Amino acid sequence: MSEAYNYQLLLKHILESGVTYAPKQEIVYRDLKRFTYRDIYERVHRLASALEELGVKKGTKVAVLDWDTNRYLECFFAIPMMGAVLHTVNVRLSPEDILYTMQHAEDEVVLVYKDFVPLIESIADKLDTVKKYVVMTDDTMPETKLTDVEYEEMLKKASPNYDFPDFDENTMATLSYTTGTTGRPKGVWFTHRKLFLHTLAGCIAMTGYRSVLRLKEDEVVYMPLTPMFHVHAWGVPYMMWLLGHKHVYPGRYEPQMIVKLVMTEGVTYSHCVPTILQMIVDNLPEGFKFPGWKMIIGGAKLPKGLALRAREKGIITMAGYGMSETCPILTGGFLKPHLLNVDEETKVELSIKTGIPFPLVYVRVVHDDFTDVKPDEQDMGEVVVRAPWLTDSYLKDPEKTKELWEGGWLHTGDIAVMDEEGYITIVDRLKDVVKSGGEWISTLTLENLLSLHPKVREVAVIGIPDEKWGERPLAIIVPMPGEKPTPEELRAHLMKFVEEGKITKWAVPDRFEIVDEIPKTSVGKIDKKVLKQMYSR
Amino acid sequence: MSEAYNYQLLLKHILESGVTYAPKQEIVYRDLKRFTYRDIYERVHRLASALEELGVKKGTKVAVLDWDTNRYLECFFAIPMMGAVLHTVNVRLSPEDILYTMQHAEDEVVLVYKDFVPLIESIADKLDTVKKYVVMTDDTMPETKLTDVEYEEMLKKASPNYDFPDFDENTMATLSYTTGTTGRPKGVWFTHRKLFLHTLAGCIAMTGYRSVLRLKEDEVVYMPLTPMFHVHAWGVPYMMWLLGHKHVYPGRYEPQMIVKLVMTEGVTYSHCVPTILQMIVDNLPEGFKFPGWKMIIGGAKLPKGLALRAREKGIITMAGYGMSETCPILTGGFLKPHLLNVDEETKVELSIKTGIPFPLVYVRVVHDDFTDVKPDEQDMGEVVVRAPWLTDSYLKDPEKTKELWEGGWLHTGDIAVMDEEGYITIVDRLKDVVKSGGEWISTLTLENLLSLHPKVREVAVIGIPDEKWGERPLAIIVPMPGEKPTPEELRAHLMKFVEEGKITKWAVPDRFEIVDEIPKTSVGKIDKKVLKQMYSR
Repeated sequence: MSEAYNYQLLLKHILESGVTYAPKQEIVYRDLKRFTYRDIYERVHRLASALEELGVKKGTKVAVLDWDTNRYLECFFAIPMMGAVLHTVNVRLSPEDILYTMQHAEDEVVLVYKDFVPLIESIADKLDTVKKYVVMTDDTMPETKLTDVEYEEMLKKASPNYDFPDFDENTMATLSYTTGTTGRPKGVWFTHRKLFLHTLAGCIAMTGYRSVLRLKEDEVVYMPLTPMFHVHAWGVPYMMWLLGHKHVYPGRYEPQMIVKLVMTEGVTYSHCVPTILQMIVDNLPEGFKFPGWKMIIGGAKLPKGLALRAREKGIITMAGYGMSETCPILTGGFLKPHLLNVDEETKVELSIKTGIPFPLVYVRVVHDDFTDVKPDEQDMGEVVVRAPWLTDSYLKDPEKTKELWEGGWLHTGDIAVMDEEGYITIVDRLKDVVKSGGEWISTLTLENLLSLHPKVREVAVIGIPDEKWGERPLAIIVPMPGEKPTPEELRAHLMKFVEEGKITKWAVPDRFEIVDEIPKTSVGKIDKKVLKQMYSR
Repeated sequence: MSEAYNYQLLLKHILESGVTYAPKQEIVYRDLKRFTYRDIYERVHRLASALEELGVKKGTKVAVLDWDTNRYLECFFAIPMMGAVLHTVNVRLSPEDILYTMQHAEDEVVLVYKDFVPLIESIADKLDTVKKYVVMTDDTMPETKLTDVEYEEMLKKASPNYDFPDFDENTMATLSYTTGTTGRPKGVWFTHRKLFLHTLAGCIAMTGYRSVLRLKEDEVVYMPLTPMFHVHAWGVPYMMWLLGHKHVYPGRYEPQMIVKLVMTEGVTYSHCVPTILQMIVDNLPEGFKFPGWKMIIGGAKLPKGLALRAREKGIITMAGYGMSETCPILTGGFLKPHLLNVDEETKVELSIKTGIPFPLVYVRVVHDDFTDVKPDEQDMGEVVVRAPWLTDSYLKDPEKTKELWEGGWLHTGDIAVMDEEGYITIVDRLKDVVKSGGEWISTLTLENLLSLHPKVREVAVIGIPDEKWGERPLAIIVPMPGEKPTPEELRAHLMKFVEEGKITKWAVPDRFEIVDEIPKTSVGKIDKKVLKQMYSR
């Protein structure tokens, strides 16, 4: 052979680089286990040998149900590196939906942590494609008819020698399912190339992009607080491995264990949704403060109040934005170089914005006709994006794929405004925004402003059909006990914000409905679909 | 259109990311001009418009002869982004060799700085393929028959709107020529994909890999001191652009201007060969110290004495290793995470070693049969590498390409040893090393040790044919004035190092020749080819 090596962008090169650079770095699993990168490297090889014996081949779908563990990290590498596909099962879905996704994915091998064994047992007879089960446990094998193969035992017996093959970088590596509020979960999938480039760009942003979260320290201790089944814990474990930092895996999320691990292992870097941050902050003893914990907050808007409360507790936050379809990184509350010297208050403001693009990402906020919004923080449009790591399609769903990629840009379904520096702020979901006389009106903004009125306890704004304008906003109000705000009062309240330039006059609702209760979904969110049905005649 | 965007790894995405992130960041050219990233972005578009008018199309070879300037940076982007090929002409070659490379490349358009106009005029009648010339100047257009088109005037008239197309990432982007000591220059070329991945990995290493040079500062001011015609100034301008840092281009290298720019523009980051570092350090006023200037030193071994002298002057150095064929980055004197807490002395030692791989790079040191050397700092082998950015071939030279990629690894032609932590140290060139009885003996090491003897002024070691052992080392010595060291003395001197384990007994030469002078090449290097002819009967 004398030809140039055809270097494909495969996950194995990420694994190799990390272990070459940081062979003695640590991987910690709760207060249970400690490994070096070299140990994990060997376990990845043993896992591949064992899975091969179980019949896993190129293209085989392997489902994993586990909390955040070193085992999951091993699966992140070993399964795709064999040319097989890692299906990260969302264990928070209903059993029916889990069954649906595993059938849809055509999973053949299932690795299941003991907590989820009863769940899998309850659907096992309908899992037609599954041929083998492996049970993961931290102690003793649970009693189950699924299998007698246990993960640690399996690794012990397996060969540490496995020669991960070269193949096309466009091979599917991972598969997961989005949890839309309507319809069946949709399969999104990523190739080695996409995960590889996502990892590189993420490393550059974390270490090279200026921000309140920039990783300048030589020793970073990383702990995910977004589940590894949720878009690979935002892909951060791959990034941290490439950078050679210490990882701490917390298993199932329990406030006490989390705080303990942060303190004993010296965790300095995490990421989570606002709810988890809230849970952590709420559970801290009076006067307690972390020595310095940086956290990317994504998945939902980071409220400024929460960001400030977290800061008092020693937690520095920055907003990140992305979605399952986008692998997920898109934007973050980074600081553009010329904004480095703004005051602390402005820095916090910028850090909690949806933000500016990660390297290599194109973000546009566009009207229906694909023209860009004015960067005036008022003009609204849908966020559409391009990046080297977005899912090419919803698995086996050409119809939904067509909508997703309309016009050659991935449609996020999020509505945003942009400021003159190019920072975007999400203001609504496309399906909720009120489209009135050619203008878009943000229901989230109206709800925020109305919630500031002293007589308002809860509020929902929806668009209702209007003959002349297409739609007009309607505000549905649950008043404070004993109060009965009038439409005039509420309108006057909003007019103050019109004068301040926060909203346009056009956005002020014509109608206000006072009700006793607002219908909610099963997870406690306002059910706008039901409201629309109730108020649209 | 409703298909997923096919994101190719093109240089235009690097340009776009940098300007989106750091629109107001500065690009400075000597004490002559200042631009923002946005200005440069516009100039790149104007340049493409103008070149299109001159007939540049996909695949057109465009030659550039310039010192380190903002213009060159504009060419780095605009020419490849059009789908054309940037030929970075090595202006240090002889006129005949420049003619050869431009003919070999089939350059059609030539952008030439006024200093090189006489050179080009002297060969213009033989440049068959060239159709257009553009002259670059900082002041007035020189008198020349080549053309009346001047770069700045051309940009002024050109449209700022140019739509850089999408195309295959494997399109050739740049072409340059290596300057081997024997034979004609050889063409090495890089695709968009290779430059793109080189840029990402470089950014990660500079900002994320721990080292005495790690860029932790939010504001870095970068100035190249390796010419931009030499493998794109090691690719660092692309990296700095993606990271949104300030660039300072020094034009032609002049010690006074360099020191002035460092002080007035606040330069903190550069890279150069040891000779340039030596020149800078030698030209500093007594007692002068830079406030903090980090420098990657490559191209030749960084002597420890020079590293320490530079440190006294406020210049922190780290070794980097690569070559034209490798784009060039391969290894650097980075610190593995578990070595972060070694003492300062050891840190300096590690920093001047050839080092450990950049992210995504595979470095092996192998014997003839492709087995790896023992990591004992004694066992020698050739450095062979893989990375996503190595040249696939020497242009139009399948024979040399075959040698380069023998066995699917790129052969560097460098001989190295490895320590137990995986750090490599180059000890010789393959063509110079003595192959004796199946063992390799480093001529560089022997020369270093013999030069420590008080009676030795200059020394060269070569291999000469030996019936029994294949080759044996011969030491050729120029004594200090009035001295006449005997073979016994010299042998005894070397035996001390054998006892210390620095060399094997086998490496000690059997023959020592005392001479008045050692033959040199035109650039002052010891001419080992001539010595071999003289002493090999």
